Amino acid sequence: MNIISSKDISKEFIENIFKRASEFEERTKVETRLIASEQNDIAKGKILATIFYEPSTRTRMSFESAMIRLGGNVISASDMKNISSSKKGESLKDSAKVISNYCDVIAIRHNEKGAVEEFSKGSKVPVISAGDGANEHPTQALLDFYTIEKEKGTIDGLKIVLVGDLKYGRTVHSLSKLLKHYNVELYLVSPELLKMPEEIMSELAGLKIHTTENLSEVISEVDVLYMTRVQKERFENPFDYEKCKDAYIIDNEILKSAKKEMIIMHPLPRVNEIKEEVDLDSRAKYFKQAENAVYVRMAILEEVITNDGLRITN
Amino acid sequence: MNIISSKDISKEFIENIFKRASEFEERTKVETRLIASEQNDIAKGKILATIFYEPSTRTRMSFESAMIRLGGNVISASDMKNISSSKKGESLKDSAKVISNYCDVIAIRHNEKGAVEEFSKGSKVPVISAGDGANEHPTQALLDFYTIEKEKGTIDGLKIVLVGDLKYGRTVHSLSKLLKHYNVELYLVSPELLKMPEEIMSELAGLKIHTTENLSEVISEVDVLYMTRVQKERFENPFDYEKCKDAYIIDNEILKSAKKEMIIMHPLPRVNEIKEEVDLDSRAKYFKQAENAVYVRMAILEEVITNDGLRITN
Amino acid sequence: MNIISSKDISKEFIENIFKRASEFEERTKVETRLIASEQNDIAKGKILATIFYEPSTRTRMSFESAMIRLGGNVISASDMKNISSSKKGESLKDSAKVISNYCDVIAIRHNEKGAVEEFSKGSKVPVISAGDGANEHPTQALLDFYTIEKEKGTIDGLKIVLVGDLKYGRTVHSLSKLLKHYNVELYLVSPELLKMPEEIMSELAGLKIHTTENLSEVISEVDVLYMTRVQKERFENPFDYEKCKDAYIIDNEILKSAKKEMIIMHPLPRVNEIKEEVDLDSRAKYFKQAENAVYVRMAILEEVITNDGLRITN
Repeated sequence: MNIISSKDISKEFIENIFKRASEFEERTKVETRLIASEQNDIAKGKILATIFYEPSTRTRMSFESAMIRLGGNVISASDMKNISSSKKGESLKDSAKVISNYCDVIAIRHNEKGAVEEFSKGSKVPVISAGDGANEHPTQALLDFYTIEKEKGTIDGLKIVLVGDLKYGRTVHSLSKLLKHYNVELYLVSPELLKMPEEIMSELAGLKIHTTENLSEVISEVDVLYMTRVQKERFENPFDYEKCKDAYIIDNEILKSAKKEMIIMHPLPRVNEIKEEVDLDSRAKYFKQAENAVYVRMAILEEVITNDGLRITN
Repeated sequence: MNIISSKDISKEFIENIFKRASEFEERTKVETRLIASEQNDIAKGKILATIFYEPSTRTRMSFESAMIRLGGNVISASDMKNISSSKKGESLKDSAKVISNYCDVIAIRHNEKGAVEEFSKGSKVPVISAGDGANEHPTQALLDFYTIEKEKGTIDGLKIVLVGDLKYGRTVHSLSKLLKHYNVELYLVSPELLKMPEEIMSELAGLKIHTTENLSEVISEVDVLYMTRVQKERFENPFDYEKCKDAYIIDNEILKSAKKEMIIMHPLPRVNEIKEEVDLDSRAKYFKQAENAVYVRMAILEEVITNDGLRITN
Repeated sequence: MNIISSKDISKEFIENIFKRASEFEERTKVETRLIASEQNDIAKGKILATIFYEPSTRTRMSFESAMIRLGGNVISASDMKNISSSKKGESLKDSAKVISNYCDVIAIRHNEKGAVEEFSKGSKVPVISAGDGANEHPTQALLDFYTIEKEKGTIDGLKIVLVGDLKYGRTVHSLSKLLKHYNVELYLVSPELLKMPEEIMSELAGLKIHTTENLSEVISEVDVLYMTRVQKERFENPFDYEKCKDAYIIDNEILKSAKKEMIIMHPLPRVNEIKEEVDLDSRAKYFKQAENAVYVRMAILEEVITNDGLRITN
């Protein structure tokens, strides 16, 4: 069982993950971070390999922490790009054939779209995507939805706005592919240059969608504000960047027009697209999102390791 | 409870750490490196994150070894500088808010003064400094004092000489801030260019202090010789370097004028400031210092994790 | 007990390693990767440090996986070259004196011949070579022989061809030094420029040896085909490279003239010297070789840790 694309994830799988993640979250609180014996046995004697062709400390560490909290072990290659075998021109499939002898499950990040799937073809053990280029980041999508459900009590019926770089942001792409399971109203806010690609739009067919370049037009209507960063490097013309960047910055002023119960999310790291003053606002949930990463990845690893349950395909 | 500056460390805390470190040392010897069951339970189910913005294998590994010998687990970012999130401009506080979800205690090294304290403001879990720029290295100071006490039986009443780069050496700075708890006579030996900064000197008010550029003037008087390296890069004028470098090299010849019971210390790595011939001298304790790193860091981690004890503030 | 050169490894040691590796292999299959309690206790409370001055994910990970499967723990420096202490000019012996305080056994890779032995002089704990420059890779040699014995039932009496870069390939060098224990017929196939060095040839005195530049001349006669890669960088004249490179590529066509029971080996990574089509041939054993790495390194680590057994010297 691999977890490579959000689009292969079933509603049943999602619900099972949320149930277990919530149990892990509760237990962690009760036990003030002490791992219960049951929890500790789930991955006993198992090894997770974290294989990152592109460094990402937060994603890697949350996977490793999740595995350890399940009682398992970790081996790690945090910077595969500079490793001799990849430099020597070994194929991804060959790398997978070799590395999968040394572990029981692999979490892999790669900078190129499709590389995770290619790698999985050579692996003897389950492969979990930790992101491939601008393409997918399915475990991030799951923890994003988990956060929404925990904070709002439900996902169905919500109005969700995705803001910023919708073209290259793999987070919003993976998240979008899960939306088909829910009855939500979607707002897409981005500069023309960074708008949601057609292939993702086609996944969203059936949902009520509003698109605009202007966040202030829609912020008062939504229940979930999902921010991503607009990177200067994406623009060919610096003037284009200057023109739009301020339209995608969240501060206390713009939040005055938002609902009292709206939640603010961000996959992090943020730079200046959410002002630090907003951290004190009770609607800010982006650090809670980062905490949820552990519970959700514990549930995903458990599912993949025990493999006794639900299929991820519909 | 954070361990960020030597100046916040109380005498009571030091004494407790020394007592426990000594117990860990004894037990390690008796059991020929086998970890006793009690010892093995202290950090059971806990995770140490080692976050190094500046690589330092020896300091990182001794922390990790200490955590594992207490029965705990480790996740590691050994080269944070090159990680995407720091490059993207995430604040230290944000990094701490995220990473502290994935562990129970953090040991952090940073190349900039004050960075560890800034990081600690965002952390949900205890933060232990593993050095920040030329500023502090409190756990090194504790293991240095532990070594002195073990080797000399006491610290009070000793004559201690600090030699070499007293301006940029964070080791001697952190060590100096602990000296207020003891009644020692201090000798500061360095080239004018690398003399102890005023702010540290003010911490030492109350101690009897001798300063000189000439080690041979004082070596016969002292009980502890604490060497640090004089780096060529610190000098604007290469001629200044050439002039003073030989005055700060320890060999068998210069040791003839030293006391028979004097001990020689060095935070390591050494290059040529202590000749290899000195390693055979029974007064050489710098490798014993490196060994003590594990026992002292075990005691510090235990203190921070169990957190049931003494405050580090006076 | 150190494992530094194949030439110090006795027949008795090899046989013991093969017996235990085979037991680990069997147990792993039966338990579908679950570690038995007995197995899990062999390295309990022990720490392996993997110290790689030259990155090698596959070798490092297989050592780490082996240690964890024995119930032990791992600390790791996967890129020592860029670490401050080596850059500052610390000697290998000093590094060993310090690092060996933090672990119970060290697996070390270095890019320079002799560096592993130099390092071992400072270490308090057993040192296992994970390769030093073009010189040695004794644990690879052991797993290569293990693979031959498992696949062919015996080593004595076999005809073995070593193909490719016999000058710089440390794998074939270490392997050659073990051959003295066996009665084999050896074929050496390489371009003149990359032929086996004289010092290795003298180790092989007593064996029947055929040398040629032409693989097709001998492929029909051999029982074991051991491929290594011919790297373009080794040639001063690109024309020399072009001339010989195709003579050392294995595809289905050339395999038609090989024995039905011949086995194909490669230390990996391979680039194009074995075509991917060959992977489907039942004679292809190079990925099985990579799997065997774990079992053999488990046996080696067990031997070194328990240290209750056979000497590696004759």
